[in-house]
Amino acid sequence: MARAPPQSPPKIPVKQILVLGAGHSSAFLISHLLELASRRQWFVTVGDLDLDLARDRVAEHASGNAIHFDVNDELLRSAQIQNADVVVNMLPPAYQDLVAWDCVNHGRHMLSVSYQDQAVRDLDSDARKKGVLLLCELGLDPGIDHMSAMALIRRLHDRGGQVRGFRSYGSGIPAPDQPQNPLRYVVTWNPRNVVMSGEAGAQYMENGRIKIVPFHQVFHHTWEVEVDGIGTLEAYPNRDSLAYLDAFGLEGVETMVRGTLRYPGWSETWAQIVRLGLPNENLRIPGLAERSYREVVEMFLPLNITEARTSQRIARFLNISPTGRIMENLRWLGLFSDEPIGCEGETAAAMLIHLLERKLPLTDELRDVVVLVHELEVTYPNGERTPERVTSTMVSEGEAGGFTAMSRTVGLPTAAAVQLLLDGELSLTGCQIPTHPSIYEPVLREISAAGLKFTEKTEHME
Amino acid sequence: MARAPPQSPPKIPVKQILVLGAGHSSAFLISHLLELASRRQWFVTVGDLDLDLARDRVAEHASGNAIHFDVNDELLRSAQIQNADVVVNMLPPAYQDLVAWDCVNHGRHMLSVSYQDQAVRDLDSDARKKGVLLLCELGLDPGIDHMSAMALIRRLHDRGGQVRGFRSYGSGIPAPDQPQNPLRYVVTWNPRNVVMSGEAGAQYMENGRIKIVPFHQVFHHTWEVEVDGIGTLEAYPNRDSLAYLDAFGLEGVETMVRGTLRYPGWSETWAQIVRLGLPNENLRIPGLAERSYREVVEMFLPLNITEARTSQRIARFLNISPTGRIMENLRWLGLFSDEPIGCEGETAAAMLIHLLERKLPLTDELRDVVVLVHELEVTYPNGERTPERVTSTMVSEGEAGGFTAMSRTVGLPTAAAVQLLLDGELSLTGCQIPTHPSIYEPVLREISAAGLKFTEKTEHME
Repeated sequence: MARAPPQSPPKIPVKQILVLGAGHSSAFLISHLLELASRRQWFVTVGDLDLDLARDRVAEHASGNAIHFDVNDELLRSAQIQNADVVVNMLPPAYQDLVAWDCVNHGRHMLSVSYQDQAVRDLDSDARKKGVLLLCELGLDPGIDHMSAMALIRRLHDRGGQVRGFRSYGSGIPAPDQPQNPLRYVVTWNPRNVVMSGEAGAQYMENGRIKIVPFHQVFHHTWEVEVDGIGTLEAYPNRDSLAYLDAFGLEGVETMVRGTLRYPGWSETWAQIVRLGLPNENLRIPGLAERSYREVVEMFLPLNITEARTSQRIARFLNISPTGRIMENLRWLGLFSDEPIGCEGETAAAMLIHLLERKLPLTDELRDVVVLVHELEVTYPNGERTPERVTSTMVSEGEAGGFTAMSRTVGLPTAAAVQLLLDGELSLTGCQIPTHPSIYEPVLREISAAGLKFTEKTEHME
Repeated sequence: MARAPPQSPPKIPVKQILVLGAGHSSAFLISHLLELASRRQWFVTVGDLDLDLARDRVAEHASGNAIHFDVNDELLRSAQIQNADVVVNMLPPAYQDLVAWDCVNHGRHMLSVSYQDQAVRDLDSDARKKGVLLLCELGLDPGIDHMSAMALIRRLHDRGGQVRGFRSYGSGIPAPDQPQNPLRYVVTWNPRNVVMSGEAGAQYMENGRIKIVPFHQVFHHTWEVEVDGIGTLEAYPNRDSLAYLDAFGLEGVETMVRGTLRYPGWSETWAQIVRLGLPNENLRIPGLAERSYREVVEMFLPLNITEARTSQRIARFLNISPTGRIMENLRWLGLFSDEPIGCEGETAAAMLIHLLERKLPLTDELRDVVVLVHELEVTYPNGERTPERVTSTMVSEGEAGGFTAMSRTVGLPTAAAVQLLLDGELSLTGCQIPTHPSIYEPVLREISAAGLKFTEKTEHME
């Protein structure tokens, strides 16, 4: 691979940053790292399957280079990771362990915005032996949500408080004060993660009782959340909230919920898409691209429903109104269209991804907004204070035609962690998420300086 | 590892067979391979996490050895595979690619009774380069079903027939003429595969139309199948039937269904277990072993149902009769028990596995039976014959207290393939399933000689 030479003969060796994945969420990160690189002895290599996309992101910056990167090409993957001082993994979650494995193998640090998965956790002891840090969940949600929650919990503990209830919500949605599509949603990150959301089910704790929700129930299982400056949103449970009890030091808590926020109405529509069975990445449908959307949707209906039109048959099967809002949304999405699908991939999930990209794009006129809300119930055992409900909210809007709020809020903490690592200010090793003060304190300082601030509100209870 | 010395100084080098996994399905295979080994220059090493189980299977046979084998121990895995001439993989499906990877790496052949997965398919070209055979789906179902179907299809093609409809069913159930538990099922193979059955959904083709069934619908989606000598069974769709269109040379077919058979009533009960969400391997429930079954089942119920008893609450939630047969089955299984679960593992799926092992064991007094049925509709384009429905059925019973039919029908074809390979009579390489005549013809001859025979019936259709 040709690399641009550093601008002056370096006294300190140039630090190599390898960013894997140049999609939606990487835009701000890459631009920001390149900006930092031009003031430091850094060089940023951006790899993507789509070389043109990687080139667009690097934009011929003197401290950067774009390469074609196929994560399944073992030799290429290994060689690139070996060349790097730090690897920033922005690839889809399924590839995280491949990257982590090579990082451990070559003694390189990995930062990742995806959820830490079991395959990565299994590398913990090997990573420690090699002095390697595998730091996951470093974006917005998971990421800033963990860091801000930890800082808040720590402050409450320090003043003698005991957290009894922890509810934490995250979201990236269209900003409220602009024209909305019928689903009131736009795709600002990997649409695959929107399509497969909830696939592992969800669990949380409410008043001391664990609740488990299977995939086919997740989007039926919503509740209202008021957000200052946005209005009423709906929440559905986000994966395994209980996995964070230990990490957050909340073993004594009675309520522990992590939720995802949407505008009201998204979930009732998506629940029916899940009931139909469309979010399926396993079954390969022969000749998918040449078939029409309607033809594929028909495959999910029993043969014995005799209504003439697809939409009537679906309404009958799902027991929803054939003329109601949900059906209108399904129609608007294009699920009954006779057009050939013409997408890449071979599954019904691939078809949905293609549809969301076409029907729910963030156009240049639109702004997105990211929302993080923590709602904590705190008691003070020594009675020196009355119980409190502390609400901490971050709302950050994107720029129309510029960087999205999603890309910026994913990129800022990630870039801050790159900086900490390359400046030698992060001595943790092994498999981590950013719940340690040596990570979250400097990262929160950095992103706050860049304008990502939380507003805190305390109400006294009973 | 200490190895027993071969009985006489060998002129031909001893061929090393490594069998990984000594569970339910391996019992007959290991015994049979050891028997063959004592008449040949073979040596059989059996590895399992449970060394005692492996030792029991080898039973101090002079041509065999038992070892502790942890598939996640990379050094051990690599060393053992390197020592083998052929590796027989009987481990759970999730480990197939680890074993296949090392086999390709060391240039060793792998035989496996699991479904070929994408990770193994991805090794095809590397395996070919190394002259390695990765032969999957070599047991009963998948296995004998493919081989017998291929042989039948080939005979029909040879006499000018065109297959219009292909329905193929497989099952391992208790033999009919004996006392039955309420679910009329016993566990004769890895109970994990029973618990997670259907998790990827299923698809098939009926009269030219593809039908796709999501996990939460699979066990609602049953139909009756009459089996000679057994009676009426129920079928539910088995995974991706369409994946076999090409492999079976059935591109022109209008109906293509692979199904799993149970006694009527299993599916209506299991459908409710799936609706509750219990078959979940992702969400780890804190303190599972100390909790009671009832406590865990309660986690899957909404908080807002006010019925006093768990069973009433479940019936209300699922909208089934609180006093009907399904509820009786759920109670008999032990799902409302106040006993501590006390199982290994941390998920609701682990709890179900534990329950099935306790409540549905194949005791020494019971016999199992395996059933394979192919139903083919054949037309003859040149009109020289009337259209036919050809039914081909294999029914094989196990011995009470001896080998199960499941173990025998999984072991026989696998051992036959070992023999072909070690005798140098199998020259295929790469990733294969047994649809090539050089595999299925000799294997079918071998298992037929051992008594596994198909009965064929031809009906002339209008």
